[in-house]
Amino acid sequence: MPALTVAQLARICRAEVQGDRHRLITGANTLELARESDLSFAANKKAIEAAASSRAGCLLAPLSFSAEGNWSVIRVEDPRAAFSRAVSALYEKNRPAPGIHPTAIVAATAHVAPGCSIGAYASIGEHSTLDANCLIGNGCVIGDHVSIGENTTVHANTTIYANVRIGSRVILHSGCVIGADGFGFTLVNDRYEKFPQVGTVEIGDDVEMGANCCVDRAALGVTRIGSGTKLDNLVHVAHNCQIGEHVVVAAQTGFSGSVTVGDYAVIGGQAGIGEKAKIESHAIVGGKAGILTGQIIHAGEPVWGIPARPLRQHLKGLAHVSKLPALSQELRDLKRKLADSKD
Amino acid sequence: MPALTVAQLARICRAEVQGDRHRLITGANTLELARESDLSFAANKKAIEAAASSRAGCLLAPLSFSAEGNWSVIRVEDPRAAFSRAVSALYEKNRPAPGIHPTAIVAATAHVAPGCSIGAYASIGEHSTLDANCLIGNGCVIGDHVSIGENTTVHANTTIYANVRIGSRVILHSGCVIGADGFGFTLVNDRYEKFPQVGTVEIGDDVEMGANCCVDRAALGVTRIGSGTKLDNLVHVAHNCQIGEHVVVAAQTGFSGSVTVGDYAVIGGQAGIGEKAKIESHAIVGGKAGILTGQIIHAGEPVWGIPARPLRQHLKGLAHVSKLPALSQELRDLKRKLADSKD
Amino acid sequence: MPALTVAQLARICRAEVQGDRHRLITGANTLELARESDLSFAANKKAIEAAASSRAGCLLAPLSFSAEGNWSVIRVEDPRAAFSRAVSALYEKNRPAPGIHPTAIVAATAHVAPGCSIGAYASIGEHSTLDANCLIGNGCVIGDHVSIGENTTVHANTTIYANVRIGSRVILHSGCVIGADGFGFTLVNDRYEKFPQVGTVEIGDDVEMGANCCVDRAALGVTRIGSGTKLDNLVHVAHNCQIGEHVVVAAQTGFSGSVTVGDYAVIGGQAGIGEKAKIESHAIVGGKAGILTGQIIHAGEPVWGIPARPLRQHLKGLAHVSKLPALSQELRDLKRKLADSKD
Repeated sequence: MPALTVAQLARICRAEVQGDRHRLITGANTLELARESDLSFAANKKAIEAAASSRAGCLLAPLSFSAEGNWSVIRVEDPRAAFSRAVSALYEKNRPAPGIHPTAIVAATAHVAPGCSIGAYASIGEHSTLDANCLIGNGCVIGDHVSIGENTTVHANTTIYANVRIGSRVILHSGCVIGADGFGFTLVNDRYEKFPQVGTVEIGDDVEMGANCCVDRAALGVTRIGSGTKLDNLVHVAHNCQIGEHVVVAAQTGFSGSVTVGDYAVIGGQAGIGEKAKIESHAIVGGKAGILTGQIIHAGEPVWGIPARPLRQHLKGLAHVSKLPALSQELRDLKRKLADSKD
Repeated sequence: MPALTVAQLARICRAEVQGDRHRLITGANTLELARESDLSFAANKKAIEAAASSRAGCLLAPLSFSAEGNWSVIRVEDPRAAFSRAVSALYEKNRPAPGIHPTAIVAATAHVAPGCSIGAYASIGEHSTLDANCLIGNGCVIGDHVSIGENTTVHANTTIYANVRIGSRVILHSGCVIGADGFGFTLVNDRYEKFPQVGTVEIGDDVEMGANCCVDRAALGVTRIGSGTKLDNLVHVAHNCQIGEHVVVAAQTGFSGSVTVGDYAVIGGQAGIGEKAKIESHAIVGGKAGILTGQIIHAGEPVWGIPARPLRQHLKGLAHVSKLPALSQELRDLKRKLADSKD
Repeated sequence: MPALTVAQLARICRAEVQGDRHRLITGANTLELARESDLSFAANKKAIEAAASSRAGCLLAPLSFSAEGNWSVIRVEDPRAAFSRAVSALYEKNRPAPGIHPTAIVAATAHVAPGCSIGAYASIGEHSTLDANCLIGNGCVIGDHVSIGENTTVHANTTIYANVRIGSRVILHSGCVIGADGFGFTLVNDRYEKFPQVGTVEIGDDVEMGANCCVDRAALGVTRIGSGTKLDNLVHVAHNCQIGEHVVVAAQTGFSGSVTVGDYAVIGGQAGIGEKAKIESHAIVGGKAGILTGQIIHAGEPVWGIPARPLRQHLKGLAHVSKLPALSQELRDLKRKLADSKD
C-alpha cells in the first residue's frame, strides 16, 4: 500500500500540521466515507460543518477552520486544490515498477527509454519510440513508427495504429483506438470505393481521453488534438479534425470529418458536429446539440439545440413553443369574440 | 456439441413429451429456421399456426396445442419462459472447462476459487479474488484488489481497473471498461487540472452489461450499479453515479457525474442524463431524451424529449407544433376578414 | 518503406508520365503537405492552381493540366479515382508478411489458409476457418466455429464471439465486438430474466466497420449485415437487425432490435432507430434523427428530426417554429387594434 505521513502531506501542501504528524495516510475519501487511514477535505461551509463528525485521519481545511476532532488538520488557502495535489502524490506511489514485462513484445528497432513500464502481452511495433517513464498497460497494441512522449500513460487494451504521434504526460484510458482509418467512401458503379486513409494522428501534451474513444487518422495530412485537451468516454473524432488546445469534450460526442475546434471550447455530451463545421475558441456547445455541416460557432458563444443556435435564441424558442397552447387559445377566444360581436 | 434429449428438456420444463423422447437436441431456433436437431417454441396464435410446417425436432407449445407434425411436443403453460429455461440448460454445456490457461498471468497474491476458467493471455492483478465458477475471457485485464463474485462471466478483452468490486452471476460483454478515471477537471491558470479519481466502482449481483460499456470510478467514494440492472451496448456511466436495482438501460445512453437512478427505472437508448439528475424508481425515460442537470424525474413517470417532459405534455407539445401551419393560416384568415369588414 | 517508381504508378493508372519516371514515391499527401517522396493529386480548379507551388514528387492531374514544376505529372481522366487506386497499391506493400506469430493460439481444429497473417497474442477458436490472405491483428479473440472469408482484415484487439460468419475483403477496425448477446430481458416476479441469445451474426463481403462497433448476435436466427455496407466508429447494431447491402452508416448511430434497412440507404451520425423500424432502400436518414418503433421510412425518402419526418416537412416545421415570435406579435397587434377600434 502507498503511504505518506501527515507531515509529508503537509510538506506537499506547504502548510503546518495540527495534531498527530506521524499518522500514516494510505487513501483519500469523502468526509462521510473516510476512515482513520484516509485524507479528506472541507472546502465549503456545509463540508466544514460535516467535518466535525468525520472519521478521516487527516483533514485539509481552510485557514479559518477551528473545529476540533480526532483528525490531524492541515490548514491551507484552497483545500480542494491542496487535496488534489496531496492525493496525486499519495497515489503516484501506485505506479508499477519500471521494466518491460517478459511477455511484452518490443520490436528490435523500437526504442524504449529508461523508466518505462510495459505490461504483459503488450506489443510495440517497429521504429516506435517511447520516451522516459511511459506506462503501457497490459494488452496494448502499439503499431509501427509510433512516437510517445515522456510520462504518458496508455491504459490496458488500448490500440494505437502505425505512425501516430502522442505527446508527453498524455493519459489514454482503456479501449481507446487511435489512428483507425477515417470514414471516406465514394459510390462508383453502385459500389462504395474506399478513399485512401494514409494520413496520421497527432496528440499534443497533457491530453486525456476516456475509455473507448476513437480518433481516426486523416485521409491525407493529420488529425490533430491540441495540448491540454480532455475527452470523456466514447468520444468519436473523425479524420482530419483539428481540435485545439485545452478543449473539454463530454462523453459520447462525435466530430465528423474536418471539423475545427478552437482553444478552450467546451463541448457537452452527445453533441454531434457536422463535417467541416468550425467551433471557434471559448465557444460552449450544449449537451446533445447538433451542429450542421459547415456551421460556424462564434468565439465565446454558447449554443444549444438541434440545429444549434445561440443559447438565448434557443431558450426564447423553447419559451415560444411552450406558450403555443396559450397562443392557440387566445386566437380561438378572439375569433369567438368577433363572431359574438357580429351577432 | 452440447446435446440434450427431448426427455431431458421435458424434465427441465417439468412437463411430458408427446413423440420421440430420445431425439438429440443440440440447438434452438425460430420456427422457420429450426432443423431436426433444434428446439423451437410457439407462444402466440400466429406462431401456433406456423408450427405445423416447422422442421424443428422439438416444440414447446401451450397446453391447448393440438396440431400434429414430425416434431416431438412438450406442452407447457408458458412456452416462451420454458423455452428460455430449456435453452439456458442446452447452451450451458458450451462453457469452457474449468482451469487457468497456461498463458494467463495470475498474481501470486490473487485468489482464484475452484471451478473458474481463465482464458489465454488474461491477467489477474495482485490481491484480486475470483469466487467459484467465474469465466474470464481471453485477453481480459483485471487489475489489483479486484473482487468478483461467483458464477460471473467477463467476456474477452474486457478491462477492469484496480479496486473494483463485482457481484455474483454478473455478465460483462467484451470491450467493457470498468473503473477508468472519472472526468473531473478544473481550469487553473488557463490549464485543466485533474481532480483525483481515487474512488471505486461496485457492481451488484446479476448485472449484465453489453459490449464496450464504460463505468467510471468515483472521484471519491463509489460509483454503484445495483443488483439485477441491465445495460445494453456502449452505455456510459460517469463517476459517482448511483444506479439502482433492476434498472434497464438501452444502448448508447450516457449518465453524467453523480446521477442517481431508482430501482426498476427503464431508460431508452441514446438518452443523455445531466449531472446530479435524479430519476426516481419505476420512471421511464424515452429514447434520445435529454434530462437536464439536476432535473428530477418523478417515480413512475414516463418522460420524453429534449429537455425531457412528462410524456403526455411532450405529446401535446408535438401536436401543437404540428398544428402551427393551421394556426398561422387561421390568423391570416382572421386578419383578412377584419380588413374586408372594414372596407 | 514501401516504394513505387513514378513509372509504376503510371502503369497502375494506365497513363503516361511527363518528367522523371524513375523517382521513388513512398507516400501520399495533400498538395500542401506533400514532399519529394510523395504522390499528390489535383482534381478541381482550386487544387490545380495550388499544384504549381506543391513540393510533391509526383502529381496526378486532369488531362487538360498544363502547369510546370519540379514534379513528375501523370495525366488522367479522374485524378481523384486514380489517386485512390495508386495509393492503395503504394500502401498495400505495408502488409505484414504471412505467418502465424509464435504466440498466437490457433485451435487444433481451426483451419488457417495460406497467406494469412495472425498477430501476437491473438487466438482462434475450435473449428474456425480463415480463408486465404486474412490479417488478424494482435490481441484479437476469435471464438469457436467462426468463419472468415479471404482477404479480410481484423485489426488489433477486436473480439468475435462463437459461430459468427464473416465474408471476404471485410475490414473490422480495432475494438469491434461482433456476436455479443442481444439485449433481451423479461420482467418475471420483479427480476429481469434473460431471453436466450443463441442466434448468430452474418457479415457479407466488402463490409467495413469503424473502431469499437458492436454487432449483437440474434436471439434466434441471424443478425445480418449485407455486402458492401460501411459502418463508421461506435455504431451499435442490435440483435436480429437485417442491414442491407451498400448501406452507409455514420458514427455513433444505433439500431434497436429487429430493424431492417434496405440496400443503398444512407444513415447519418447519432441517429437512433427504434425496434422493428423499416428503412427502405435508398432512404436517407439525417444525423441525430430518431426513428420510432415500427416506423417505416419509404424508399428513396430523406427524413430528419426527432421523430423523423420527410425532410421537406421537417424544414417547414422548423420554419414555422422560427416564425413563432412574429406570429405571436401579429396576434397581439390584432387584439390591440380590435380593442382600439372598440374604444
